[in-house]
Amino acid sequence: MTDAFHALHHADQPLLLPNAWDHASAAALVQAGFGAIGTTSLGVAAAHGIPDGQNAAGPETLALAGRLSHLPCLLTVDIEGGFGGGPDQVAEYAAALVAAGAAGINLEDGRADGSLVPVAEQCALIAAIKARVPDLFVNARTDVYWLAGDGEPDEHAALARAEAYLAAGADGIFVPGAAEADHVSALVAGIDAPLNVLYQPGRLTVQQLAELGVRRISLGSLLFRTALHTAVETALSIARGEPITASIPSYAEAQRLSER
Amino acid sequence: MTDAFHALHHADQPLLLPNAWDHASAAALVQAGFGAIGTTSLGVAAAHGIPDGQNAAGPETLALAGRLSHLPCLLTVDIEGGFGGGPDQVAEYAAALVAAGAAGINLEDGRADGSLVPVAEQCALIAAIKARVPDLFVNARTDVYWLAGDGEPDEHAALARAEAYLAAGADGIFVPGAAEADHVSALVAGIDAPLNVLYQPGRLTVQQLAELGVRRISLGSLLFRTALHTAVETALSIARGEPITASIPSYAEAQRLSER
Repeated sequence: MTDAFHALHHADQPLLLPNAWDHASAAALVQAGFGAIGTTSLGVAAAHGIPDGQNAAGPETLALAGRLSHLPCLLTVDIEGGFGGGPDQVAEYAAALVAAGAAGINLEDGRADGSLVPVAEQCALIAAIKARVPDLFVNARTDVYWLAGDGEPDEHAALARAEAYLAAGADGIFVPGAAEADHVSALVAGIDAPLNVLYQPGRLTVQQLAELGVRRISLGSLLFRTALHTAVETALSIARGEPITASIPSYAEAQRLSER
Repeated sequence: MTDAFHALHHADQPLLLPNAWDHASAAALVQAGFGAIGTTSLGVAAAHGIPDGQNAAGPETLALAGRLSHLPCLLTVDIEGGFGGGPDQVAEYAAALVAAGAAGINLEDGRADGSLVPVAEQCALIAAIKARVPDLFVNARTDVYWLAGDGEPDEHAALARAEAYLAAGADGIFVPGAAEADHVSALVAGIDAPLNVLYQPGRLTVQQLAELGVRRISLGSLLFRTALHTAVETALSIARGEPITASIPSYAEAQRLSER
């Protein structure tokens, strides 16, 4: 399973990875034909009323991984910064995810306060995980671009972190926030491993990212946010007496998402 | 809190009740201005990979009620057929929901096999709940119309069940599947308590239902199904390289759903 997941990063086309937040969203994406599913830490945390990015949703994330294990798909789990603790605890958590059926994880270096975990500290987490569960695809996320916001990102810092994370054993590098073609090209050229970026609506398309050499494209919390938005807008439309014209799956179709 | 919820069934306009399936959907609906929120048993079950209507999602539903307790809204919880057990156990479960902050429950008489719970058995559940937590708004759902599907529903049976449930202590009657104006009118005329129906897209509008005398209009699993549909369609659109034009809440907006 982990072999198959590794291979998806070296296929003809980049891996387009939709991110689920609960069993239903994962099952619906698998039914629609997606063979690999990620989780979105924002979605999983928000579904439980927990703030994202504060390493607070570890038990809920592990429980979700267990629930998704029967789905016919490969699964990679967003574990924020490792959900707290030192290298031993984070490695133990990663092993529990592997036992639950996960083929990969995302581990990020951004902190809730906008700072970055020191490189050596992050490398210790990665090394401990790879020592404990060598086959797990560890996608090391650096938030250098993400935290730069609209400012100019520090490409040198991102490349240095990528190199250190790969030396520690990471299998791929995730740079959310890299959305300009020249930024993406520079990262592809400078990183000796599959590059993962976050899809951003209205920016580069999947095909354009593929042509730039990106190997994995994540949807992050986009689907979760879109789903919530639609739910609220539909409720408001009904309250206003407006007709609901969207095509909506039947009760029976939704019920089938829980079939085993 | 329960008084305020009772009062919503006797206001100028019927209570339009949107149904949430997790913390995020509930928080987003409250942010949009809805002051009372229901849960959808299909959504809650599917979010956890559990079949709906089989009384299997009791712990998950109670945990969700606890998570929603800090939201500034009134909450009514769909407990399917009571999640198993006899009157004492179901009454105990209802008391736990009240302790978690619920102002109301829905209790249904339809079984997964398409049959109806015997009237006396259902009345014993209702009476036990009302004896244990008298202030809880017990919305007794009869599935006479729902299970009739496209066939002609047995109005007499529905009215007889409504009368028995009210005599057992129910505060309101929910008849999902009643979607024709003449059916709804007959139920309003024949039931001496607030009538709740399920909103059905393309059928009677909220205003039309209000004019017929309906006191509560539930969206059931509609928002959940719409949200999932949109998530999958968005993922497929991105995979096809189509532009995503929908207005989508920002990461920061979604993050705020978990603020306390």
